[in-house]
Amino acid sequence: MIVAVLGPRGTYTELAARRHFPSVVSFTYCSSILEVVKMVEEGRADAGVVPVESMREGSVGETLDALAWCNVRVTAEIVFPIVHSLLGVRGARLEGIRQVLSHPQALSQCREFLKARLPQAELVEVSSTAKAAEQVSRMASVEVAAIGPKELAEIYGLEILAEDLSGNEENLTRFFCLGREKVPRTGRDKTSIVFYTERDRPGILYEILGEFALRQINLTKIESRPSKKVLGDYLFFIDFEGHEDDELIKEALEGVRRKTAMLKVIGSYPRRF
Amino acid sequence: MIVAVLGPRGTYTELAARRHFPSVVSFTYCSSILEVVKMVEEGRADAGVVPVESMREGSVGETLDALAWCNVRVTAEIVFPIVHSLLGVRGARLEGIRQVLSHPQALSQCREFLKARLPQAELVEVSSTAKAAEQVSRMASVEVAAIGPKELAEIYGLEILAEDLSGNEENLTRFFCLGREKVPRTGRDKTSIVFYTERDRPGILYEILGEFALRQINLTKIESRPSKKVLGDYLFFIDFEGHEDDELIKEALEGVRRKTAMLKVIGSYPRRF
Repeated sequence: MIVAVLGPRGTYTELAARRHFPSVVSFTYCSSILEVVKMVEEGRADAGVVPVESMREGSVGETLDALAWCNVRVTAEIVFPIVHSLLGVRGARLEGIRQVLSHPQALSQCREFLKARLPQAELVEVSSTAKAAEQVSRMASVEVAAIGPKELAEIYGLEILAEDLSGNEENLTRFFCLGREKVPRTGRDKTSIVFYTERDRPGILYEILGEFALRQINLTKIESRPSKKVLGDYLFFIDFEGHEDDELIKEALEGVRRKTAMLKVIGSYPRRF
Repeated sequence: MIVAVLGPRGTYTELAARRHFPSVVSFTYCSSILEVVKMVEEGRADAGVVPVESMREGSVGETLDALAWCNVRVTAEIVFPIVHSLLGVRGARLEGIRQVLSHPQALSQCREFLKARLPQAELVEVSSTAKAAEQVSRMASVEVAAIGPKELAEIYGLEILAEDLSGNEENLTRFFCLGREKVPRTGRDKTSIVFYTERDRPGILYEILGEFALRQINLTKIESRPSKKVLGDYLFFIDFEGHEDDELIKEALEGVRRKTAMLKVIGSYPRRF
């Protein structure tokens, strides 16, 4: 079985995928979220894992955009905690670090630690925590460190200089597992949809939400993304409790379909939170 | 008059601010959106300008988070087109460029140009287009170029190697002007609010939108952001037509207030689109 994830080796996405597929045969490392989705759509991977939202930073726009337009299905949600460590080459010591590399969100999540323990260090933004570790390993300087999951230490031959840098700030992140087939109902499911309506019709979103409210269907998330046609024109992404094969959900979706210019069920999958 | 904007000199935020305040006395350059908001809140700047959403990339989460919790008012919306140029040091030629620096979103918006004209160039992500120009100017190599607004050329002593890189892809971006005072109604206004509700109450968002729908108030935007307390718990940001001093809007807001745990009017301001 081949699972597509964001590369390079050791991203949080790969760690989440490993937990979900404990006996996976092999991973394919992609350079973007869109590439992961395309690998699944085109059958070059059996499954894919992408980040969809984080408790701290909100939705991942690139994932929502790809799910709106590509022909894949969400088959599972994975909730995975982001826990950062400080990683350096062999011989590096916390006190000697002069430069810290990481993804901007990781640097921001560890700002308290950095301010208290490494106030003089220069912070350098790179595009992923895994790339930061790769780069530190290549630079081979005892004055440089990366912030990322502690699993990166083994992958890139680094040592853990400090653990759990974000302290009490829990940061659960939600990932979607992608496939091409529908998942059967379990009785405790969630469904994700995306729709598009005509612009500037007062009350249209209210009417659409009514299809769920009148049937006591609980919405768990609503999010808008620009349609990229005109400023102020949006796609809506909604998650709700229930499976698309439930009678009540079928009725609600039929109602939504009549009120929208486009409706797509992204997937129904077992509910994890 | 002092206006706080994102630095360094020449960011799109500064360009939008210069258009809005043609006779401004001086700009203060901040290192983050939160710092801009704080400067206004604490009276160290008379006004501030921050990006709030782009047609291509969607909402700027950092701005929404700051507006939810800081004591400032939106006094105007500014719509400004993002148009990228390629900038190099004197003597650089398009064919000789081996490395291109810019903000990840700018690199992504110019991917067609880069693929066609600079397929071999290495792309380097930095935290703003203005920082990219600053760095190119400092590196002083004819093999390196930055992507950003053409106004950066004059500021950093660079030359324009190519213009309008994103081709037909229009990219309007919306900025908020911030102050501390309410703006009087003009008769063609918009209002931005943020609210928080109890979690997991089916239909609550539907009921809240009903306060607007029943009064024929047109919503122009709805957006959710994580509350950062629990995964799946959100703040909602809504923009709608009308001024908070309009009788109809006052009624609707009173209705929303009764249904929510927190409601804040971020501002009423003249409508630009």
